[in-house]
Amino acid sequence: MKKVLIDCDPGIDDALALALAAGSPSLEVVGVTTVGGNVDLSLTTANALALREFLQFGDVPVTPGSAGALLRQTVRATDVHGPTGLGDVVLPAPERGPSEGHAVDFIVETLRAAPGEITLVAVGPLTNIALAVRREPRVVEWARDLVIMGGSFTRGNYNPAAEFNMLADPEAAAIVFDAGWTVTMLGLDVTLSALVTSEVLERLRPLGRLADRLLVPAAQFYGVVTAEGGPAIHDACAVAYVLDPSLFTCVPAVVNVETAGLYTRGMTVTDFKLRDRRANALVATSVDVKGFWELVLGAYEGLADRLG
Amino acid sequence: MKKVLIDCDPGIDDALALALAAGSPSLEVVGVTTVGGNVDLSLTTANALALREFLQFGDVPVTPGSAGALLRQTVRATDVHGPTGLGDVVLPAPERGPSEGHAVDFIVETLRAAPGEITLVAVGPLTNIALAVRREPRVVEWARDLVIMGGSFTRGNYNPAAEFNMLADPEAAAIVFDAGWTVTMLGLDVTLSALVTSEVLERLRPLGRLADRLLVPAAQFYGVVTAEGGPAIHDACAVAYVLDPSLFTCVPAVVNVETAGLYTRGMTVTDFKLRDRRANALVATSVDVKGFWELVLGAYEGLADRLG
Amino acid sequence: MKKVLIDCDPGIDDALALALAAGSPSLEVVGVTTVGGNVDLSLTTANALALREFLQFGDVPVTPGSAGALLRQTVRATDVHGPTGLGDVVLPAPERGPSEGHAVDFIVETLRAAPGEITLVAVGPLTNIALAVRREPRVVEWARDLVIMGGSFTRGNYNPAAEFNMLADPEAAAIVFDAGWTVTMLGLDVTLSALVTSEVLERLRPLGRLADRLLVPAAQFYGVVTAEGGPAIHDACAVAYVLDPSLFTCVPAVVNVETAGLYTRGMTVTDFKLRDRRANALVATSVDVKGFWELVLGAYEGLADRLG
Amino acid sequence: MKKVLIDCDPGIDDALALALAAGSPSLEVVGVTTVGGNVDLSLTTANALALREFLQFGDVPVTPGSAGALLRQTVRATDVHGPTGLGDVVLPAPERGPSEGHAVDFIVETLRAAPGEITLVAVGPLTNIALAVRREPRVVEWARDLVIMGGSFTRGNYNPAAEFNMLADPEAAAIVFDAGWTVTMLGLDVTLSALVTSEVLERLRPLGRLADRLLVPAAQFYGVVTAEGGPAIHDACAVAYVLDPSLFTCVPAVVNVETAGLYTRGMTVTDFKLRDRRANALVATSVDVKGFWELVLGAYEGLADRLG
Repeated sequence: MKKVLIDCDPGIDDALALALAAGSPSLEVVGVTTVGGNVDLSLTTANALALREFLQFGDVPVTPGSAGALLRQTVRATDVHGPTGLGDVVLPAPERGPSEGHAVDFIVETLRAAPGEITLVAVGPLTNIALAVRREPRVVEWARDLVIMGGSFTRGNYNPAAEFNMLADPEAAAIVFDAGWTVTMLGLDVTLSALVTSEVLERLRPLGRLADRLLVPAAQFYGVVTAEGGPAIHDACAVAYVLDPSLFTCVPAVVNVETAGLYTRGMTVTDFKLRDRRANALVATSVDVKGFWELVLGAYEGLADRLG
Repeated sequence: MKKVLIDCDPGIDDALALALAAGSPSLEVVGVTTVGGNVDLSLTTANALALREFLQFGDVPVTPGSAGALLRQTVRATDVHGPTGLGDVVLPAPERGPSEGHAVDFIVETLRAAPGEITLVAVGPLTNIALAVRREPRVVEWARDLVIMGGSFTRGNYNPAAEFNMLADPEAAAIVFDAGWTVTMLGLDVTLSALVTSEVLERLRPLGRLADRLLVPAAQFYGVVTAEGGPAIHDACAVAYVLDPSLFTCVPAVVNVETAGLYTRGMTVTDFKLRDRRANALVATSVDVKGFWELVLGAYEGLADRLG
Repeated sequence: MKKVLIDCDPGIDDALALALAAGSPSLEVVGVTTVGGNVDLSLTTANALALREFLQFGDVPVTPGSAGALLRQTVRATDVHGPTGLGDVVLPAPERGPSEGHAVDFIVETLRAAPGEITLVAVGPLTNIALAVRREPRVVEWARDLVIMGGSFTRGNYNPAAEFNMLADPEAAAIVFDAGWTVTMLGLDVTLSALVTSEVLERLRPLGRLADRLLVPAAQFYGVVTAEGGPAIHDACAVAYVLDPSLFTCVPAVVNVETAGLYTRGMTVTDFKLRDRRANALVATSVDVKGFWELVLGAYEGLADRLG
Repeated sequence: MKKVLIDCDPGIDDALALALAAGSPSLEVVGVTTVGGNVDLSLTTANALALREFLQFGDVPVTPGSAGALLRQTVRATDVHGPTGLGDVVLPAPERGPSEGHAVDFIVETLRAAPGEITLVAVGPLTNIALAVRREPRVVEWARDLVIMGGSFTRGNYNPAAEFNMLADPEAAAIVFDAGWTVTMLGLDVTLSALVTSEVLERLRPLGRLADRLLVPAAQFYGVVTAEGGPAIHDACAVAYVLDPSLFTCVPAVVNVETAGLYTRGMTVTDFKLRDRRANALVATSVDVKGFWELVLGAYEGLADRLG
């Protein structure tokens, strides 16, 4: 049983990542925290709450966190995720609200209570994680691992240099990569390999309510699906990594997050030549696409059975 | 009765600022928080604890906060403040330790409990204040005022562009100035006007234990005292402003903190031409030096009577 | 007899500087080169040509140079100098045109032909000088001296950090300050001390055609003249320095030109603490205002006699 | 007959590019200019002179240019090219020296004399080209085309972000890409595809003196040659492009050269999404490797016949 705390900004692919977690009996989700990112914090929190009930996460606490970046203006990705953050997906209104308190405190206290046990999975801007690190530097020791969806070692998606989550808070990302732990980074380099093709979509369609209400509209809103390719479900890769690291080839690297460039803010500058430097990241360089989808579809099937 | 929460990094001039607060019956110090700055956090906290007892602050809580800057390397000023942070000053070892918890939480909770009542006085790097703002943006509304010692609108002291407190955490300073309140900034432009001359020193000398143990060795370690000039006691200006704002001429300005320059990181770029922009700062441009020393010496005299 | 080559962007104060040179028998102007700056290159060149004839400079060659900054956008100061660059001043149309060739080549060849003899006086953006240095690094040895109007060690005028000439081409300024010579820098710190007061204006008024056509309308367009103060005539300070360096107190310094800041591009970061570094600049810190005006008014009077 | 002016910093791959030009009867080399880059200017010039005679370029002028970058420190690649710049290659000492004058003037005057006829091929740092553009902006119109080896749209070689030629003078590169023409950019993305495999090497070996003295030691010094791969001969790609553009797939793009990043200076940030912007570059994205080597080996064979 692996324990994870998921920091996210749902977001369509966040929803698919949460569904993967919900459908994985070997995973215990000890909490969900939200951050402003793809859309505003109020929406990412509302979406997380709706997903908690729709995905039958039980009483996993959902705790809202940071509304914007540490420094400077906030960027949003409503062009990708739609005005609500979930595209055409409309879930039943949740009955329960968020937990009291703030995501940063929740992260600190939850890790403090179980040092070495909980893996942080961060699939949005790293604002909450950075604030937790600065508020209580020992979270770096207490976390079993930190697995993020973000960055890339080749090209970005928000612009040629930067991936959205990193660009949305470059200073937070710099803090997190410099904090002393080894960040497992699942960047665009791998997430853009695991695409929802029409073959994948055909396997999703029969999955009842889960498919009809979430998986299929999510995939279709997110991009055109063809035999050869379709949208990536970025954030799900981070959860998949926790479930089965052997699906990914990971290489130690020194990752520096650019905070000062004119055209490169938020770029995860990834150096695989360590020389005498400590690797601060384990960077995924390839993914077993077939294995990935077996894992994901298996989880979705199990969850679909439960949801009816 | 004005309530203040003092965030500091003692530091010689921090000590003299705390002494001013301790000697001012019209001020209620609701808490002291510490930050790494002039010296390491362990030392600034130890010094704050020793000062609490030596200055008879009673049960004012002392809560340690951030050890280093938000981003990048930490700078120290041990060349100015000596390895302990208090120069040649040696105070009795304190009997009581710091409060539980973290300065950022203390600031947030203290302001939350008394909205509109408490003035934040920050005389070190702004790391704690920035984290409090990001952790709970409403502190900006809850604080009665924020008065800082830091920056300058002409030249720096750490280097030609930057004053030490701002240089020590430029990103924190940028967060604080951009947070939506109006920061009252007492920079080098005024603090370098209020100097411990030999005339001032002569008035300090008779102040018994306070003078012998703290004021005189502090002033002398801090710099050469002559008839024309001597060291500035920067941080005391911020407390003096709270006690009597009329001592200072203050001008509304737009202050941007440089975070990206090769030679100018930490500079408080101060524009007095507002055009259509909201002033985010009230910048002290001159000080009534005579009035300042009357206020300070009066407070020290009262305190000396109490301390014996 | 001191030989000078004047690189300028007339510009009202450039015109007053050229008038000072024209009225100084101890100065031989070996050439005037123009650069885009206060206004476009076509206008600065046209103005230089008109001034050559109006001020009776004889056959001093006027050679146009760089139209814009080395990198990035060009800034102009038409708000200060009016759309023509000379405010309300209207001079007779010149009969002769500019020299063949380019200012950069003219600078290189003129200095090559008389090593150690000619002082470069640069009172606009440093684009031409930087290109000359990069095209032929030996100009640094060949120049007798380089005297610029530009920068400041306290505050700017284009914005709080930067003076206009430096801001207009920060990379060129960085090249020039790093080239290996010692730049004599007359910045705002002194130029803003030597103001056209109403007393000065009264002494200008009787100077016949020179006053009626140039000096008086220039001064009046440039700013409000009162008993206590009026406009500075920045560029004239550089020529005055060549004529009589003893009018200025100059201090060795390390000047770094900021090229990377968000708010500080073009700032001349001036460090008077040399430590073990070579001073790359001699920075004027004060000016004998009375002596300055005696020099300038004397030269203008002589010139007025000649011009009738 | 295509006319080219080659600006280079030999450099092993520069030598192989010059050999390709020398062996291509359809190319007329109207001049070679040198720049400090892989090694110091004195060495790149000496190597160019030796290559002119060894490759029997006749009386093609060799004109030295800029010794260092426009701004800041110069970087060298002696680890890659050896202390002389030509690795283990030792050519006969040249009998003739360089032309009088400076590369920048040569470029300007040569293009001025034959507008629309000459293609600039730049395979070193872009210092000379940038200075030519700033000295005479019309070179942008006069050049038939500008083809560079430099940059990349994925990853660098000097560091993860930047290719050597761009890193060696980022400001020059920025000037060149912003000058108004469309730069044809052959970056690492294609040059690292056309490798000297052992199969290629076997075809080089029989080429007599050309092979023995230049091609084989160059290839071997430059890196390990195996059946699957070996060193790239970057600069030769730029000449090959001029000879046969159809070997390369090129895509219009907006390229911005980063000059301000902490980790990304010199990066060619390449955006293939033009939106409403003019493409300032035509970026090679793939190369017909087989066709490339047929072209190159054919040229080398012809040259070898001539050289004996």
